[in-house]
Amino acid sequence: MTRTVLESASKTVTIGFDEPFCVIGERINPTGRKKLAAELEAGDFSTVERDALEQVACGAMVLDVNAGVVYNSNPNPNETEPPLMRKMIELVQDLVDVPLCIDSSVPGALEAGLAATTGRPLVNSVTGEEERLEAILPLIKKYDVPVVAISNDDTGISEDPEVRFAVAKKIVERAADFGIPAHDIVVDPLVMPVGAMATAGQQVFALVRKLRDELGVNTTCGASNISFGLPHRHGINAAFLPMAIGAGMTSAIMNPVRPVEMEAVRAANFLMNHDPNGGEWIRFSRVLDAVEGGESFPDASRASAEAGSGRGGRRRRRG
Amino acid sequence: MTRTVLESASKTVTIGFDEPFCVIGERINPTGRKKLAAELEAGDFSTVERDALEQVACGAMVLDVNAGVVYNSNPNPNETEPPLMRKMIELVQDLVDVPLCIDSSVPGALEAGLAATTGRPLVNSVTGEEERLEAILPLIKKYDVPVVAISNDDTGISEDPEVRFAVAKKIVERAADFGIPAHDIVVDPLVMPVGAMATAGQQVFALVRKLRDELGVNTTCGASNISFGLPHRHGINAAFLPMAIGAGMTSAIMNPVRPVEMEAVRAANFLMNHDPNGGEWIRFSRVLDAVEGGESFPDASRASAEAGSGRGGRRRRRG
Repeated sequence: MTRTVLESASKTVTIGFDEPFCVIGERINPTGRKKLAAELEAGDFSTVERDALEQVACGAMVLDVNAGVVYNSNPNPNETEPPLMRKMIELVQDLVDVPLCIDSSVPGALEAGLAATTGRPLVNSVTGEEERLEAILPLIKKYDVPVVAISNDDTGISEDPEVRFAVAKKIVERAADFGIPAHDIVVDPLVMPVGAMATAGQQVFALVRKLRDELGVNTTCGASNISFGLPHRHGINAAFLPMAIGAGMTSAIMNPVRPVEMEAVRAANFLMNHDPNGGEWIRFSRVLDAVEGGESFPDASRASAEAGSGRGGRRRRRG
Repeated sequence: MTRTVLESASKTVTIGFDEPFCVIGERINPTGRKKLAAELEAGDFSTVERDALEQVACGAMVLDVNAGVVYNSNPNPNETEPPLMRKMIELVQDLVDVPLCIDSSVPGALEAGLAATTGRPLVNSVTGEEERLEAILPLIKKYDVPVVAISNDDTGISEDPEVRFAVAKKIVERAADFGIPAHDIVVDPLVMPVGAMATAGQQVFALVRKLRDELGVNTTCGASNISFGLPHRHGINAAFLPMAIGAGMTSAIMNPVRPVEMEAVRAANFLMNHDPNGGEWIRFSRVLDAVEGGESFPDASRASAEAGSGRGGRRRRRG
């Protein structure tokens, strides 16, 4: 059975066919967040701190950390990203106890992140492009960590799911040449917006089943892409996630601070028999009660965690 | 391609693998609705009228009509159900233009309903019990209508999905002996409460796939059974429906006057590529806007239908 094991200093999270769906929090990412990018350039990490705490409180099991800024003072990401990645990772793993996902297109930033991370983070990402394969796979081998494999290559993103499957297969095979096992490859089959491509949903469901049956790999996606440009996006996302989970998707990079999507994921876990006795559902339903009563989702989630086992997401600060 | 064709006097609804999910409105049913049962005994049909109009406005494509009352004045359903079924069907088909689903465990009530219905209704239901097969299948053949086949037999409801599949197969084969084609059998694989049976969801998804792949039949279910006894039932239902649709379920008997479940169904239709260009989703998103603005779901749905093509669910009353 395929198991992708992620670790922080104190916590293990397994992505797997027989595990609850792995929610990877996407918020710590300055791409498309101008205000956050400006804060980071100014050395202000308060938003990163809040995003880390809120996402874990709301149910993120892993946090994606992306340092993809373009500073006004220095437009070269090869220079700016590595030190910022290191700084952000140190800060986040000091604050919360979940494993991390190091997210960058700059190999130097991935390596800086890998050097700074305690445990076994997920690396996001390698593609089927030759240059990326040659740059990233040796890092994956060196640090013995799992990697997200995105199904595009030097020809771009194919609209043909068979081509995307072939790219994923090539990455798995190339990884094997480096001694990296298939269970450490988490394939992102690429989710297109259903508003632009009518077959987008069906493509993903079919690809996920095929990736699982034929390559035996775990899968992930940028879930909210599916609803790009549409009204009532959360309704589309909240149907897409259970359908993807039913098809065999085992993780997603998504915003966990949205109760509608998290409700869909938790209900799907229950329906997949990944929530024994519905304990998680019943606990979550009390959070929903509090949200209906006017509390914010992060506050209600935090209160529920504190009222429960006492094992909240927050670690004591060092020193 | 399997197509189960239902007709009213003026409308055709096809249940099929390449069709939008068929929502069969469950509300017109006095079982467990004491107030409605008392109204019907007193000759008051105002709730039936409201339920018919509201369900069609909210998106029901077929209306289930169940006359399963136990009158205080006469406890024998073989005497009370047939005339009540006839009366209710006449009333409902006079009021709305969707096909009907005649729902009774009393063969005389099914026959009375069939005689009263214009078009091609769905009959709900036959089981694998010998006595039921012998009583119902000749009626189905005589009236040339489709039938819901429930996967239990003389031994009761099996917890083993293989047994439920075998019962469905037996019903399809027995129907064939009567000259009834498989495309006129809509199998209900039986949905158990996931709170009582942890594998309930997975059983249904696997059974639906198998029924479709191996018997080529359409499927239906009492969707809300899945969440029986649980808090925040609508959240479970709203994940179950897309997952069942993704697995190949083609209809459900459900309450269409619930925006959360209807949102899930409409999003799933879009994701299955059964909503070309998302036109239905965009129209529905305006209904959700109105609901968020404080309107009731039936009122908002009605207003949207009237603002649209003018083809609302309401027919002019006769004479």
